[in-house]
Amino acid sequence: MAVSVLAYATANPGDTSDFERKLSRFDPRRIRRLAILGKTEGNADSNDFSRELALLATTRAIERIGGPALLARTTSLFSTGCEGAYTPFGYLFVDAEEARARRRRPGRPGSGLALGVGRSRSLKAREVGTVAHARIVADTVRKAMRDAGVKAAQVGLAIVKTPVMPHVAAVEEGKAEERRITSHDSKAVGGLGAGIALGEVSGRAVTPARIGADHSLHARRAMVFSGSEVDYVEVLLLGNKPGAGGGLAIHSTQIADVLDARSIKRLLVKAGLRLDRFGEVADSERVAAMLLKVGFAPDGRIRGRRTTILTSHIDHDKHLRAAASGILGSMLGTTEFFISADTIHQAPPGGGLCACIVRRRG
Amino acid sequence: MAVSVLAYATANPGDTSDFERKLSRFDPRRIRRLAILGKTEGNADSNDFSRELALLATTRAIERIGGPALLARTTSLFSTGCEGAYTPFGYLFVDAEEARARRRRPGRPGSGLALGVGRSRSLKAREVGTVAHARIVADTVRKAMRDAGVKAAQVGLAIVKTPVMPHVAAVEEGKAEERRITSHDSKAVGGLGAGIALGEVSGRAVTPARIGADHSLHARRAMVFSGSEVDYVEVLLLGNKPGAGGGLAIHSTQIADVLDARSIKRLLVKAGLRLDRFGEVADSERVAAMLLKVGFAPDGRIRGRRTTILTSHIDHDKHLRAAASGILGSMLGTTEFFISADTIHQAPPGGGLCACIVRRRG
Amino acid sequence: MAVSVLAYATANPGDTSDFERKLSRFDPRRIRRLAILGKTEGNADSNDFSRELALLATTRAIERIGGPALLARTTSLFSTGCEGAYTPFGYLFVDAEEARARRRRPGRPGSGLALGVGRSRSLKAREVGTVAHARIVADTVRKAMRDAGVKAAQVGLAIVKTPVMPHVAAVEEGKAEERRITSHDSKAVGGLGAGIALGEVSGRAVTPARIGADHSLHARRAMVFSGSEVDYVEVLLLGNKPGAGGGLAIHSTQIADVLDARSIKRLLVKAGLRLDRFGEVADSERVAAMLLKVGFAPDGRIRGRRTTILTSHIDHDKHLRAAASGILGSMLGTTEFFISADTIHQAPPGGGLCACIVRRRG
Amino acid sequence: MAVSVLAYATANPGDTSDFERKLSRFDPRRIRRLAILGKTEGNADSNDFSRELALLATTRAIERIGGPALLARTTSLFSTGCEGAYTPFGYLFVDAEEARARRRRPGRPGSGLALGVGRSRSLKAREVGTVAHARIVADTVRKAMRDAGVKAAQVGLAIVKTPVMPHVAAVEEGKAEERRITSHDSKAVGGLGAGIALGEVSGRAVTPARIGADHSLHARRAMVFSGSEVDYVEVLLLGNKPGAGGGLAIHSTQIADVLDARSIKRLLVKAGLRLDRFGEVADSERVAAMLLKVGFAPDGRIRGRRTTILTSHIDHDKHLRAAASGILGSMLGTTEFFISADTIHQAPPGGGLCACIVRRRG
Repeated sequence: MAVSVLAYATANPGDTSDFERKLSRFDPRRIRRLAILGKTEGNADSNDFSRELALLATTRAIERIGGPALLARTTSLFSTGCEGAYTPFGYLFVDAEEARARRRRPGRPGSGLALGVGRSRSLKAREVGTVAHARIVADTVRKAMRDAGVKAAQVGLAIVKTPVMPHVAAVEEGKAEERRITSHDSKAVGGLGAGIALGEVSGRAVTPARIGADHSLHARRAMVFSGSEVDYVEVLLLGNKPGAGGGLAIHSTQIADVLDARSIKRLLVKAGLRLDRFGEVADSERVAAMLLKVGFAPDGRIRGRRTTILTSHIDHDKHLRAAASGILGSMLGTTEFFISADTIHQAPPGGGLCACIVRRRG
Repeated sequence: MAVSVLAYATANPGDTSDFERKLSRFDPRRIRRLAILGKTEGNADSNDFSRELALLATTRAIERIGGPALLARTTSLFSTGCEGAYTPFGYLFVDAEEARARRRRPGRPGSGLALGVGRSRSLKAREVGTVAHARIVADTVRKAMRDAGVKAAQVGLAIVKTPVMPHVAAVEEGKAEERRITSHDSKAVGGLGAGIALGEVSGRAVTPARIGADHSLHARRAMVFSGSEVDYVEVLLLGNKPGAGGGLAIHSTQIADVLDARSIKRLLVKAGLRLDRFGEVADSERVAAMLLKVGFAPDGRIRGRRTTILTSHIDHDKHLRAAASGILGSMLGTTEFFISADTIHQAPPGGGLCACIVRRRG
Repeated sequence: MAVSVLAYATANPGDTSDFERKLSRFDPRRIRRLAILGKTEGNADSNDFSRELALLATTRAIERIGGPALLARTTSLFSTGCEGAYTPFGYLFVDAEEARARRRRPGRPGSGLALGVGRSRSLKAREVGTVAHARIVADTVRKAMRDAGVKAAQVGLAIVKTPVMPHVAAVEEGKAEERRITSHDSKAVGGLGAGIALGEVSGRAVTPARIGADHSLHARRAMVFSGSEVDYVEVLLLGNKPGAGGGLAIHSTQIADVLDARSIKRLLVKAGLRLDRFGEVADSERVAAMLLKVGFAPDGRIRGRRTTILTSHIDHDKHLRAAASGILGSMLGTTEFFISADTIHQAPPGGGLCACIVRRRG
Repeated sequence: MAVSVLAYATANPGDTSDFERKLSRFDPRRIRRLAILGKTEGNADSNDFSRELALLATTRAIERIGGPALLARTTSLFSTGCEGAYTPFGYLFVDAEEARARRRRPGRPGSGLALGVGRSRSLKAREVGTVAHARIVADTVRKAMRDAGVKAAQVGLAIVKTPVMPHVAAVEEGKAEERRITSHDSKAVGGLGAGIALGEVSGRAVTPARIGADHSLHARRAMVFSGSEVDYVEVLLLGNKPGAGGGLAIHSTQIADVLDARSIKRLLVKAGLRLDRFGEVADSERVAAMLLKVGFAPDGRIRGRRTTILTSHIDHDKHLRAAASGILGSMLGTTEFFISADTIHQAPPGGGLCACIVRRRG
């Protein structure tokens, strides 16, 4: 088994032509796990249906190629919002039995990229945003660790999708008067839950009063997404597994703020990449995947100065994704990377995290 | 005479408290020229009135401090659109007789920053966007060069404001059926006109057919802005004048695309600044002003890849400004710089330009 | 054969549960033609994918219910933009052989609602917006008239979908420099072409110079839509056919401007409905479908007064749809009707048109 | 003394030319009270500065015409958001000593329009949104009643402006962690406070738990606005005063929802206007001012149907204002009226209120 990571292009959220091309390189029967992390280009507001379109189109494509059996082994996560110098596209993760020619030679030890997934039961609207929800996230991350065959210390990144019950549904369930769970709240418990499973947050510390309030509690290797199209928690986990093949490794780090290019560069250097004298990555073709999640301080300031992040007609996350795209783009010389925002309980306020999957040299 | 450059903070577009504080360091009677280049934080759409508010508030403040006489020696240019990791603020340029203590010692030769301004007559709606408009821009840039006392080769940057006649006015003049002059069209002739004056564009080459069409024609040291609040051309010009004092110098360069951080870093190195091993500016406190103008290729692609710059509910310029803010911000460690978009006839398609004013060492 | 018109509710653009419920009332084998006119709730900007989602989801539902054979007899048109007091939903038109019990009694003569459809060949990007495109529209409307079995004078409404070639595609075909065909341009030839077929526009009058310029040329019973998801012209035509059953009739009228509620009320009265003393429709339950298309004058004024229709961050069509929703809503006591904007060559500048399908009394 | 109501046109929020023209009809020394209720056309988001521009420009105009003395007798309230079939403009209320010729003849008894104003002390950030704030509103409304010389029963409309402390200011005061007072919260206490003064809400009923929660508590004749440009409560009150001159009367009513045109028409009929057979106002030239405030139900539904009011990239209030503009516009045949949204504690959920000032016949 070895995990391959391929980027596929899209002409629009419903376009699966390159996805199908890339997927057809693999024999569907040899695929243990298929995972998709896609970025779509909708308006990233409540009337954005680009994720739903991408999911429906990709589902149909997988069915065509591998039937319901392959679909059942697939985990898909689409994130919308593609502002700045940024390309809508997708990463395809394929955990497959290696074809003979590609199998690693005995003389090549070391660890390789491992992939694991997990899915929880359906949540009830009243559970979303609670301590119980956080525990469900923790359990689902642990399930994905077992699936990947890695321990907490070997995890590079846990990608978590948690549900948001839409307003109307909540009203119908008669809960709207009590509390309104936002996408932000759902991500909060997602971060805490992942942190518990990864050993970064004490399970005991996660109490109702501290959810969304005590920002000293946070995971360090989790990126959390939310969506109203799921009512369950879903995890896509990436780690470095001793003895695994594939020639890829994942590295991750926390960053201090959206402008903290230095921490990202340190991560890349640690991953074995080389910076030129302008601080740009000289061998960026070795980067198989680049993922960044950025946040903002409660007062909206950056490096002590006022910004419009919180005082604009444009949602704060769009400001952040676009600014970050310039940073990654000028560092890597491309616009193909994955950027997302809202790092609640995934980093200290204003901070974020970055993960890269890098091909081994030679 | 010596030109000082000061950044002033704003709490909102109508706030002039820091502006007044900074301006009050100077004796109004000793000020030859006052120039303001401000960035406001409106929505940068046609219903954004933040520039008008800033202009009205600043005008009142100048009147209070220096009366109508100082106001008559003032040139103000406000640009809106402050997306990403970016701070609304203003640069205050003061060309004033130096107080005795500050006067340069005889042993300190070399050139210093010079400032010049120019203003044209009022244009008619039907002139806007024509070759005649380009010539008026060229004449106004030349006037500003004379005012600054610099030759074309000594110009670091010509900042040009050209009028846009609003749609309704054009309709009333009975011109709407014929052609609709946009902000983009007005900037086009602004770029060409400035290029003529700076010796970068041949006056003969500027024909109706090539305006907005032949993008091989472009200025190299001009940033052009447009606004419906003016019906004249206004120029604020900065250059390096032999023998001038003040300890400041301006440098500028063209950049290839919005991700071309390398050209900006080369400019900063040429200006005497130092990069650390991550490519960040080690002595950024010496940067008195940083100005960037970025464009996009006609197909909206960057480095060969699809972006959402042209296919989003968010105007293309906002994508660019925000992405560029991340680049400058991570390079300089601040969010206080001036970024604008639309480089038509100011750079090749997709390109841009950058100017920095740097304080001499020690 | 008789045409039924049913409104179906949607919880989101991808929801087909009520659609399937309504469709399942019919035996798929007895359905001659199925037509869908849906309104989705995306942001109605270039990054709105709600129509594509609705189309894909509805296609799957029809396949499930009636297989590829029913899908081949189906015409779908989704329009996005649902601002104001307005409900996203769809109209389902079913032209089916009547079940015995429902067949009209011999003693009930008169005309009934008839439905016809037509589809053209694929257009090339360079054809879009030309006279040839207008002729293709005219031919397709005629085809739909034949399919419905009605003459031009019996047509109540021709709903036309015409293609827009997206910018990027046009650039790749090397046409972008020459001219940029917008959705507006495509609708212009759609209106003219429909007008030719309906005898409202002289075919000879449609010349390149008059397209989009001579607004005295316009259809009177055509609503034109455009979309980048089609490269062909598609027509859904409704008329009153002598001897047809079903108990429905279609009526249409032109309106003078977005506030012209009076013309709409006159139409409803002519269709046999009753107004109370406040001018509201007393028997609005007899309205099976209500369709409105509204435009704006070139100067953006209404009744001589300035508006923000052309000078706002919100697209003009959104202002119009929302304002019109208040008018129809207060008149009919519901928010379920179909409103669209842009009436180029479908009405004089600033005007629009309204069509209603009304159930016969008793 | 008699109150005149004049509408003045604006070319943009900073344009005061028609305002000055209309104001110059009065002798400044004879003006007891000047009040302005203006509608500006910014984007109505947090980066909209159109109100600030209008206020600054109008202030300068009043100073020019009547000096600081007239300015001290002036109350200005600008509201932004002008979507749909709607004109940005202003109402000028002038309470002035009547010129001899215009004085009412002794034989003409009855009541006339009266105007009163009130202003509170500055509020502290921590007071905003509290019961204390509501009491300050009540006191300020009572002050305005005394100024107008009317009793609670004679009040037609109390227009209340209450402060919102901007987020950044609250953070600086160290309150951001505790609670975030929104514009909506500030309006809530504004409505309750006005209701107390007008005898529509029991002062005892206004407790922290019921603010923003118990929507059975609401004023019936108050329109509340909020703004971050004020830190005090300001009231502009209109009533019918026995024996007053001027030939104007104010009438107001609650409406059930945004589509409730019927209640508005009933109000107009009660005010002496005439409806034609289409339910349109036949003598709308007698309407001196028309003010409407509309709300939405917590589930965003209208007449039982789903809308996009709460699930759109466009703020709910914009949907409502635009829809309402179509209703008033088609009823009155003009686009010049005042519409605002958010009726929290000013009407039951989803409801609103309407006030008209009508000229007496003859």
